[in-house]
Amino acid sequence: MKKIIVLGAGMVGSAIAIDLCKNYKITSVDNNLENLGKLNAFPIKTLTKDLSDPKVVQNIVADFDLVIGAVPGFMGFQTLKAVIEAEKNIVDISFFPENPFELDTLAKEKKVTAVMDCGVAPGMSNLILGYHNQRMEIDNFECYVGGLPFIRKWPYEYKAPFSPIDVIEEYIRPSRIMENGEIVIKPALSEPELIDFPRVGTLESFNTDGLRSLLQTMNIKNMKEKTLRYPGHIEIMRILRESGFLSSEPLDIGHQRVKPIELTSKLLFPMWQLSDKEEEFTIMKIVISGNEAGTEKKYTYHLFDKYDPISKTSSMARTTGYPCTAVARLMLDDDFKQNGINPPEFVGADEKCFAKIIAYLKERNINFDMVCE
Amino acid sequence: MKKIIVLGAGMVGSAIAIDLCKNYKITSVDNNLENLGKLNAFPIKTLTKDLSDPKVVQNIVADFDLVIGAVPGFMGFQTLKAVIEAEKNIVDISFFPENPFELDTLAKEKKVTAVMDCGVAPGMSNLILGYHNQRMEIDNFECYVGGLPFIRKWPYEYKAPFSPIDVIEEYIRPSRIMENGEIVIKPALSEPELIDFPRVGTLESFNTDGLRSLLQTMNIKNMKEKTLRYPGHIEIMRILRESGFLSSEPLDIGHQRVKPIELTSKLLFPMWQLSDKEEEFTIMKIVISGNEAGTEKKYTYHLFDKYDPISKTSSMARTTGYPCTAVARLMLDDDFKQNGINPPEFVGADEKCFAKIIAYLKERNINFDMVCE
Repeated sequence: MKKIIVLGAGMVGSAIAIDLCKNYKITSVDNNLENLGKLNAFPIKTLTKDLSDPKVVQNIVADFDLVIGAVPGFMGFQTLKAVIEAEKNIVDISFFPENPFELDTLAKEKKVTAVMDCGVAPGMSNLILGYHNQRMEIDNFECYVGGLPFIRKWPYEYKAPFSPIDVIEEYIRPSRIMENGEIVIKPALSEPELIDFPRVGTLESFNTDGLRSLLQTMNIKNMKEKTLRYPGHIEIMRILRESGFLSSEPLDIGHQRVKPIELTSKLLFPMWQLSDKEEEFTIMKIVISGNEAGTEKKYTYHLFDKYDPISKTSSMARTTGYPCTAVARLMLDDDFKQNGINPPEFVGADEKCFAKIIAYLKERNINFDMVCE
Repeated sequence: MKKIIVLGAGMVGSAIAIDLCKNYKITSVDNNLENLGKLNAFPIKTLTKDLSDPKVVQNIVADFDLVIGAVPGFMGFQTLKAVIEAEKNIVDISFFPENPFELDTLAKEKKVTAVMDCGVAPGMSNLILGYHNQRMEIDNFECYVGGLPFIRKWPYEYKAPFSPIDVIEEYIRPSRIMENGEIVIKPALSEPELIDFPRVGTLESFNTDGLRSLLQTMNIKNMKEKTLRYPGHIEIMRILRESGFLSSEPLDIGHQRVKPIELTSKLLFPMWQLSDKEEEFTIMKIVISGNEAGTEKKYTYHLFDKYDPISKTSSMARTTGYPCTAVARLMLDDDFKQNGINPPEFVGADEKCFAKIIAYLKERNINFDMVCE
């Protein structure tokens, strides 16, 4: 039985470990005992280590056939680098801000296959685009994605299905959009737009910096990613930003210097915390249009996935974790073995890989409904 | 020529001094040289003193025929007490939170006439109610009042025409309303209600704790005071309050303890600052209904007052300061000489006093339009 080490046992890391432990020997690593304790009910070996030290990472991955990177974003890049230096294949979902292609030469030298950004968006959105990009000349790509609670509570009508500081980051970081073949920088929270979704109703989308690798790997004139919230949430966050509550610039408060964002996080994060067993969903709509074999074609994908009350797995953990475990299986089965840094669009370009991942997710009741017009 | 000392030379205190200096010998006192400097263009004597020491107050008022109290609210009560102990008549607009009637016995002992809360609301609202209360059996009193900028800038569409921390106080302090003869406590920012006003359009009202002395002095079944803002402002302030941004409970931010309200004040107050010569207005609607000589009567008063570009006096300073100077004149002319603590409703109960004040304000182009139905 092949051996996988999962670095990080947070919400997504633990869902990954639990999914993979049916078919592989899994070791989960975290420095948080509470996170590891939740894995006790499964045939998963746990290891308490501080993964913020790349040397620790390099040592502990030595005995494994595959590494899964599920550490917090800020330590994602150094962890990926350490794993590549240890000459181990890796699937990563840490969504670090650095440019992964800086490690491409190293990965090729070490004959390592590394797939990063392997979640839902980035992740499945890249995979689907990569698939169609191989088969048609795309001139437009749109991705709308959000993770939301079913219960809408005033005023935010929002619960963060992943680290809330990363949510705030989406509200601050300018977003890079591709317009007419040029990368255009738009403010965070810009271009709010109401969109109706079946089963959910009206949501509001706003620009986020989610295209990431696609800005480098794709030659498509128009690409955008927008995040979805219940209507009104964006306006509140714009007001907080306009007022300075999201600023990292310290202010003098009496004799103290305080970064407003730190106070804001302290106040908002408890309000944004999903409570135990709170039902949430993930929704994604992808539109791809262009010319396929001489005909104008438009592909629309819809994903609607819910909290799983049986396994008590959040939809965000499911939709982020299972694309990662799907790719892990492809790699262990030698279905995908391209050396270097591979964003999911490279994996999706391969028809067999694409089909296997879609089927793998379907087995887990994650269904992408596709309409071709 | 009679001599008046004006304690405090802030926005309202200086408008008072300037208004009175045409007919009286005025001395203005403040510890802020910038405030005093603005009075140099007028025949006003200025004195730099720290008025937070009641002994200082008691000493400096000795030589004057009348005292005007225009200090910040938090030192208003102690200042009033010091003036009464110095046996000087006083008109006060410091709007302190304490109960002024605690000083009533002292004032009567010292044969002092003290009129407090002598602004627009509290102030003119009390005066008008006091006038009608003498002439009819009132069962309903409503006061809607606000000071707003003409230019509406997203997101707050608001500029504070007086100390912004006192504005925040209106958003926090529960409001006492009289309902069916009982004092009912309602949350700040509660019962938002849209109201159309001529010349202004739609505004939104919310409960504020503005009845003050009326809760003690009037025997009226239903009384409420609501503050006016442009629609939407209240919702933002409710969201900030709900999120904890208006809280005075310290939070641990790293190694520091920070009161959210202090950070919020630091961020919002610059946004709420009226810029030099920025035009603002004061709007007030008063509804008084009940039985007058056997007939159901309803009196509605409307006030709409604007920034005066010639004297560069804000409307809030005009409408707050001139009722105070009107009462000052009444007192110096012996038109009003009732010893003790007198809220404006006691002054308004006297027909001659009421008429003189209304005429005094009309001379200054502050017009109360009244409709009787």
